Amino acid sequence: MMKLTRFVLSRCPTKSHTRPLSLFSTYSSNAYGSSSSSVLYVDYTIFKGKAALSISPILPTFAKTSSGALIVDKKGAILLKFYPAIGERKYDYEKKQCFALSATELGSLIGLAPAKSCEFFHDPSMKTSNAGQVRKSLSVSPLSEDGYFFTLTVVNSLLKTNERFTVPVTKAEFTVMQTSFSFMLPYIMGWHQLSSQSPGSNLAKHSEVSLSPNLEWNR
Amino acid sequence: MMKLTRFVLSRCPTKSHTRPLSLFSTYSSNAYGSSSSSVLYVDYTIFKGKAALSISPILPTFAKTSSGALIVDKKGAILLKFYPAIGERKYDYEKKQCFALSATELGSLIGLAPAKSCEFFHDPSMKTSNAGQVRKSLSVSPLSEDGYFFTLTVVNSLLKTNERFTVPVTKAEFTVMQTSFSFMLPYIMGWHQLSSQSPGSNLAKHSEVSLSPNLEWNR
Amino acid sequence: MMKLTRFVLSRCPTKSHTRPLSLFSTYSSNAYGSSSSSVLYVDYTIFKGKAALSISPILPTFAKTSSGALIVDKKGAILLKFYPAIGERKYDYEKKQCFALSATELGSLIGLAPAKSCEFFHDPSMKTSNAGQVRKSLSVSPLSEDGYFFTLTVVNSLLKTNERFTVPVTKAEFTVMQTSFSFMLPYIMGWHQLSSQSPGSNLAKHSEVSLSPNLEWNR
Amino acid sequence: MMKLTRFVLSRCPTKSHTRPLSLFSTYSSNAYGSSSSSVLYVDYTIFKGKAALSISPILPTFAKTSSGALIVDKKGAILLKFYPAIGERKYDYEKKQCFALSATELGSLIGLAPAKSCEFFHDPSMKTSNAGQVRKSLSVSPLSEDGYFFTLTVVNSLLKTNERFTVPVTKAEFTVMQTSFSFMLPYIMGWHQLSSQSPGSNLAKHSEVSLSPNLEWNR
Repeated sequence: MMKLTRFVLSRCPTKSHTRPLSLFSTYSSNAYGSSSSSVLYVDYTIFKGKAALSISPILPTFAKTSSGALIVDKKGAILLKFYPAIGERKYDYEKKQCFALSATELGSLIGLAPAKSCEFFHDPSMKTSNAGQVRKSLSVSPLSEDGYFFTLTVVNSLLKTNERFTVPVTKAEFTVMQTSFSFMLPYIMGWHQLSSQSPGSNLAKHSEVSLSPNLEWNR
Repeated sequence: MMKLTRFVLSRCPTKSHTRPLSLFSTYSSNAYGSSSSSVLYVDYTIFKGKAALSISPILPTFAKTSSGALIVDKKGAILLKFYPAIGERKYDYEKKQCFALSATELGSLIGLAPAKSCEFFHDPSMKTSNAGQVRKSLSVSPLSEDGYFFTLTVVNSLLKTNERFTVPVTKAEFTVMQTSFSFMLPYIMGWHQLSSQSPGSNLAKHSEVSLSPNLEWNR
Repeated sequence: MMKLTRFVLSRCPTKSHTRPLSLFSTYSSNAYGSSSSSVLYVDYTIFKGKAALSISPILPTFAKTSSGALIVDKKGAILLKFYPAIGERKYDYEKKQCFALSATELGSLIGLAPAKSCEFFHDPSMKTSNAGQVRKSLSVSPLSEDGYFFTLTVVNSLLKTNERFTVPVTKAEFTVMQTSFSFMLPYIMGWHQLSSQSPGSNLAKHSEVSLSPNLEWNR
Repeated sequence: MMKLTRFVLSRCPTKSHTRPLSLFSTYSSNAYGSSSSSVLYVDYTIFKGKAALSISPILPTFAKTSSGALIVDKKGAILLKFYPAIGERKYDYEKKQCFALSATELGSLIGLAPAKSCEFFHDPSMKTSNAGQVRKSLSVSPLSEDGYFFTLTVVNSLLKTNERFTVPVTKAEFTVMQTSFSFMLPYIMGWHQLSSQSPGSNLAKHSEVSLSPNLEWNR
C-alpha cells in the first residue's frame, strides 16, 4: 500500500450555510454573462446507503506583490464532503466532514493502479497551538469489481469524538473522479491562466524569423 | 459483466424537427460572433448497415436561487440517437430512439476495459403515473478486434411495441467516443464554468504573501 | 493488423504558397488581439533522414441554414504533410504530399495498441469523374522500441507516378501526436464551441429548483 | 533504456530576479481583468531533502511575417528548475540550474512506461563559438514504488564546474507532471490558439449544405 505519511494543513469551509445550499461548495466569479458576482454550485455527488460523498473544485486565489506580479496565495484543491445518512435517501447536511485534496494527492488518485490503495493525513490546525488536536485521514482501498472504498476518519482529541464515513465508489464513479480530477488539476495549479492569452501578447519584438529545422535534426 | 441496475429518468428531445435537421441535437447559445442565439449542430454519426448512431453533447442548464446563486437545474448528458436503416445508405430519421448518458454512465464507458460489457436502464416516465410503461436499455458488449456492439432496446408496454437497434462500433470509433466523452465530462458536470474565471476575480484581499515550502516538506 | 478499407475523399491545400511558408498549414481567424484576420502557423514537424513529417490541425467550417442554425459545412481534420529530403537537413517543400486524418482515423491512432498497425485509404477525387485516378494510403506500422513507421503512398494512374514517403516516428514523437490529437479531436468535431457558453445562456426559465438525490439513489 | 542523444539548444532565464521571486518563472500577459500586463507565478514545486524541483510552463512567442501571418518565433517549453538544499527546508535560490523540456521531450515523459528511464542532452551555447563548453543532461530513472529519480548534471568545461542535482519524485508527483504536461503540450505547440475561434470566423461562404452520410458509409 502506498502511504503518504505527511500531515498537511486541512482546509474546510465553515458550516454556516443554510441547509439546502450546504450540499455545495462555493466560489465567486465575475465572468458570467448573467451576473457579475454569482455563486455557482457544481458538485458531483454520490449517494450511498450510509453516507453521501460530494466533490467540487476550489480554484487557487491570487495575490499581488508590491511589484505588481500575481502570485498564488492559496492553492486550489478538490473538496470532498461526506454526509452521514439519517434514513432512506436522507442525509444530515449539518454533520458533514470535509477533506481538501492537493495537487499531489490528486496525482495519487489519478494514477492509482487497480487493486492498490492509498491514504492521506491532514491536520486542520497544523502550525497553530491546536496542532494535533484534530486528525483527519482519508483512506482509499480496493472494493470488488475495480471499485474503491472512500473512508474518512476524523479524530478530535479535544471533543473526544471519532467520526467515520465510508462510501463505496464504483469503478464508473471512480472514473468520473479521475477524469474530472485530470481536467481540474491544471486549474488547481493555476496553469489554466495561460489559456486566456492571445498570440498578440506573446508577440516577439523583432520580425526576422528563422525557420530552424537544424535544431531538431536527428542524428 | 458490470451491470448497473438502477433505472433513471430518460430524457429525449421531441421528434418535431424537420427531416434534414433531425439528424442533430440542438442547444442554444449567445456566445457566437456571428449571431446572438444560433443553434449549433455538431453530431458525430456512425453509419452502419442496419442503423446509424449519432452522438452529441447536452450542456447542463442553470437556475438562479433567491439568493442569486447559480445552481444546476438540469444535468448535462451525452445524447445517443439511433436511426433504423431503410435501404442502402438511407435512414429513417422519424423513427429515431434516444438515450441520454449521465456523468456516471459516461464514466462507465470511459473506463470500460477491453472485452468487458456494461448495461444501463432508463425509464422516461420515472416518478410519474406512467412509470414502468416504457423501459429502455442500452447494452455495450464486446465485438471482435476490440470493438463493441451498442444495442438499444425500447419496450413500450402501452403501445405493445418492442424496438431494437444494434450498431457495431469499431475500436477507432469507440476511442473517438471515449476521448470526446472525457473532454465533455467536466462540461456536463458544469465544472467548465471555472475556466472563464480570471485571476483578478480570485484575488486575495490581503497582500502579504508567505511562500511556504514547509507545508509541502516531505518527512 | 487493423485495416480500414474505406476510401474517403482526400483534402489537400494547393501548393501555391511561397517556399518559406509552405512548411505550414494555414487557417484564418478573427479572434486575435493583434489582428482581426491573421494567418497562424503552428505545425509540429519531425525532421528525419529521408523525409520530414509536418502535422497541423484544420478546424471545421460552419454554414448557416435558412433557419439561422449553424451546421458543420466541412469537417475538421489533422493534416499530415510529407516533404522529401534533398540533402542533409534540406527538404523540398514544393514536392509535398498530404493526408487529412478524420475524427475516426484519429481515434484509430489515439487507441493504437503497442506493436499494432493500421492503414487508411483516401481518394482525392472520390465522387467525381476522376475517381480512382489518384489513390493515397497511409500506413502506420510498428518500429523497434515502441515507435512507428509512417508511410504515405500516392499512386497517380493518370500521371503514372508512384510516390512513397517513409518517416520513422519515435515513441516520444508518437506520444506527442496522440496527446495533441486527443486535445484537438473535440475541436475537429466542433464540440469545442460549447466551451464558449456562459451559464447565463443556459439559464432555466423557472426558478423553482428541486435537489433530487432520489434520482441517483443506488438500489 | 531509451536514450535521446541529440543535443539541443538550452534555454534558461537569467538569474537577475530578486530572491523571493526567483522561485518562479515569469511570462507576461495582457488578458487579465485586474491588470493589463501582470506577471504570473504558477510553479509546481517538489521540496526534497537534497534539492527542490520547480516546474512551470513557458508559452511560445509569435512573430509577424511581412505578409501579416503569425508564426511561432520561440517554441514553448516546460521549465524545470533545480535548487540545492542548504539546510533543513532551506534552498539556495541563487544557485539554481534549469532545463527546458521541448514538446518531444515532454512526449517522452508522458509516455514513459513504468520502470523505464530516459535521458536528454542540451547545450545552451549550441551553434555559437561557445558550443560544447556547457553540457547539461537530465536523467529520469526508476525509483522504487513506481517513482523516478530526476537527475540534472551540468558540466561547465570553461569554469571547470560539475553540478549535480537529484530529486526523488514519487509516483503521485510524476502523475501530476504527466497530467499537467499533457494539458500544456498543445499550448507549447501553439495549438491552443484554435480554441479562441468562433464558428462565425470559419463560416463557409455558400449556404447550400449537403449532409453526406455516403462519405462515411462503411463497406
